[in-house]
Amino acid sequence: MMTDPQILLTPGPLTTHPATRQAMLRDWGSRDAGFIALTAEMRARLLGIAKGGASHAAVPLQGSGTFVVEAAIATLLKPSDRLLVLVNGAYGERMATIARRMGREVAVLRWPEDHPVDPAQLAEALRADAAATHIAMVHCETTTGILNPLAEVAAVVARAGRHFLLDAMSSFGALPVDLASVPITALMASSNKCLEGVPGIGFALIDRAALAAAEGNSSSLSLDLHAQWRGFERDGQWRFTPPVQVVAALVVALRRLEEEGGPEARLRRYCRNLEILASGMKRLGFPLFLDRAVQAPIIATFHLPKAAPKFQDLYDALAARGFLIYPGKLTEADTFRIGCIGAIDETVFRRLLDAMEDSLRFLRP
Amino acid sequence: MMTDPQILLTPGPLTTHPATRQAMLRDWGSRDAGFIALTAEMRARLLGIAKGGASHAAVPLQGSGTFVVEAAIATLLKPSDRLLVLVNGAYGERMATIARRMGREVAVLRWPEDHPVDPAQLAEALRADAAATHIAMVHCETTTGILNPLAEVAAVVARAGRHFLLDAMSSFGALPVDLASVPITALMASSNKCLEGVPGIGFALIDRAALAAAEGNSSSLSLDLHAQWRGFERDGQWRFTPPVQVVAALVVALRRLEEEGGPEARLRRYCRNLEILASGMKRLGFPLFLDRAVQAPIIATFHLPKAAPKFQDLYDALAARGFLIYPGKLTEADTFRIGCIGAIDETVFRRLLDAMEDSLRFLRP
Ligand SMILES: Cc1ncc(COP(=O)(O)O)c(C=O)c1O
Ligand SMILES: Cc1ncc(COP(=O)(O)O)c(C=O)c1O
Repeated sequence: MMTDPQILLTPGPLTTHPATRQAMLRDWGSRDAGFIALTAEMRARLLGIAKGGASHAAVPLQGSGTFVVEAAIATLLKPSDRLLVLVNGAYGERMATIARRMGREVAVLRWPEDHPVDPAQLAEALRADAAATHIAMVHCETTTGILNPLAEVAAVVARAGRHFLLDAMSSFGALPVDLASVPITALMASSNKCLEGVPGIGFALIDRAALAAAEGNSSSLSLDLHAQWRGFERDGQWRFTPPVQVVAALVVALRRLEEEGGPEARLRRYCRNLEILASGMKRLGFPLFLDRAVQAPIIATFHLPKAAPKFQDLYDALAARGFLIYPGKLTEADTFRIGCIGAIDETVFRRLLDAMEDSLRFLRP
Repeated sequence: MMTDPQILLTPGPLTTHPATRQAMLRDWGSRDAGFIALTAEMRARLLGIAKGGASHAAVPLQGSGTFVVEAAIATLLKPSDRLLVLVNGAYGERMATIARRMGREVAVLRWPEDHPVDPAQLAEALRADAAATHIAMVHCETTTGILNPLAEVAAVVARAGRHFLLDAMSSFGALPVDLASVPITALMASSNKCLEGVPGIGFALIDRAALAAAEGNSSSLSLDLHAQWRGFERDGQWRFTPPVQVVAALVVALRRLEEEGGPEARLRRYCRNLEILASGMKRLGFPLFLDRAVQAPIIATFHLPKAAPKFQDLYDALAARGFLIYPGKLTEADTFRIGCIGAIDETVFRRLLDAMEDSLRFLRP
């Protein structure tokens, strides 16, 4: 199990392409011209995916996705600012926790985990809450896989004259985001989800005016995206040691995204993955937790019926057959999750369904 | 230059062994048993290197070394605590900056960059400063390569009943540290220096009693080493997505360290590297900046004489010959640096000296 590669059906780290991993086979001097060029290419490609070249700056940060979410909040909110978080899952809750821990004023608007954020309720809340300067939302709530209405929420926030922070961790690279037409102050994501890179860096695409005005806000040196940006602008270098192999892998993964046809083509592949997966699982007795209308093609949550094997037994049986699935993260229902993302296509999902059928036969003979 | 691998004579990222990089060729499910075992092995080996098994816990953290230095300060100091930093270079200054930025009270004791920290002066300062609860020092100040007197300083701090935080970033894995006999509350280091792994994680070895008492201190969720530790203790998993390939590479690098004969053997190799380097450079007209008595075998700072080529020309000439050297970081003298660490031995340094001689002939014909 430690040497046999498995297919990861997880929300990241996920299955990457061998060419992406092979980019890690060499060493890079982090202050050398070759690596500076690699960093510049990465930053330009990240911006390009969201058409942010005219308005935003790409600021990569060492660490996991949570680090860059925290860094964006720490950098963009002044101590006197107030954050309103739109929550329908664990990653929305986490943004509220982060802001509270750093001493910012925080308010939360909550929806059930199977309901998308409602722009009309937000509009109403903003009329009542004049003090909320920044509104934060998760694009695809990985807790369930639900898609929140990005364009509508962004429009409500902009009409109210507030800043919008988007956690696009699990959607960026597949679900379209157009920074030229949708008003977003900062979008945060990481290397290891729909971009199909390996984990180790997050990044934020930040409105340049907001970023320029954010000097000195962060009480964390490591998580200061203004200072991080200034570093890149000064000499193209990272302030602190970057994970050079992770960056090299991400650049290869970004080139592969372009070759595939960009986010549109990737979205089509993921949609097809979800299609095959959801219909096959339904046939095997595992209905989707969410309404299809709000289900993003990123990760699918399935009900685990009472009569079905226990999750751990199912997990082990599938792991023995070469597939890693993912536990549920819901407080209410008994569920588990299967990711649709990564360098995998429908043939993999057909094999998964065969393995699932085989596992079920094995577990309840 | 982008495809031809070069020898990195830098303080990390540095030259790693091919077997270490090859460990990155597969994907890992970060919540799977295989990866949990890998994390456990890494944590045990890190502790073992410093004989900390009975007293300390190894807490790895995503990000660069600076992140874990900041996290240790954020986690171990209560808001009412006061940090005294012993400074003789840029990384000492950085600790003071970090603590000030997060709102902690900070005092600084400074020495010139070519002078080691003086334990007697510290003892005197501690008699005058009853409020300083934590004392922080850099073991090997990478700014110059100077070695600070660890055992003596730790003893003074312990006698005064204060906590000792050690930035052992550039020394850990080569210079000996014995947590069973030298009183250190927390030691911070990273994957990509003397351990010869790739960059992407730092770690702290923290006294278990101090760590257990540190709940809720950190105002940063991402940089909270108490919560990070609790996560590992609970289920062996990282709280947030770990850079799985970086962890896999570090485990291979740690196994290689053991095979080499541990830190003692590694130190001997680095000492030999420095020996060859320093005597050869002297012959070529580049004297060491530091007294040999305080020079650690980690990174060497050389004077750049007025008559010598400019640093950038020397850099480019050596890069074209396959070697990356490092700029100086001194405010006062015109210098440059050459690392002695990484998966390289004296044969590499002999080749470097040939390349240097050749470069000098080329640059001043
Ligand atoms: C929507 C969302 N936000 C934040 C995160 C946190 O990312 P990380 O685990 O890399 O810290 C995740 C990870 O799954 C996520 O899906
Ligand atoms: C002594 C010391 N402390 C801290 C750091 C910071 O590490 P990083 O660049 O990984 O953030 C370094 C890096 O060279 C170092 O040498």
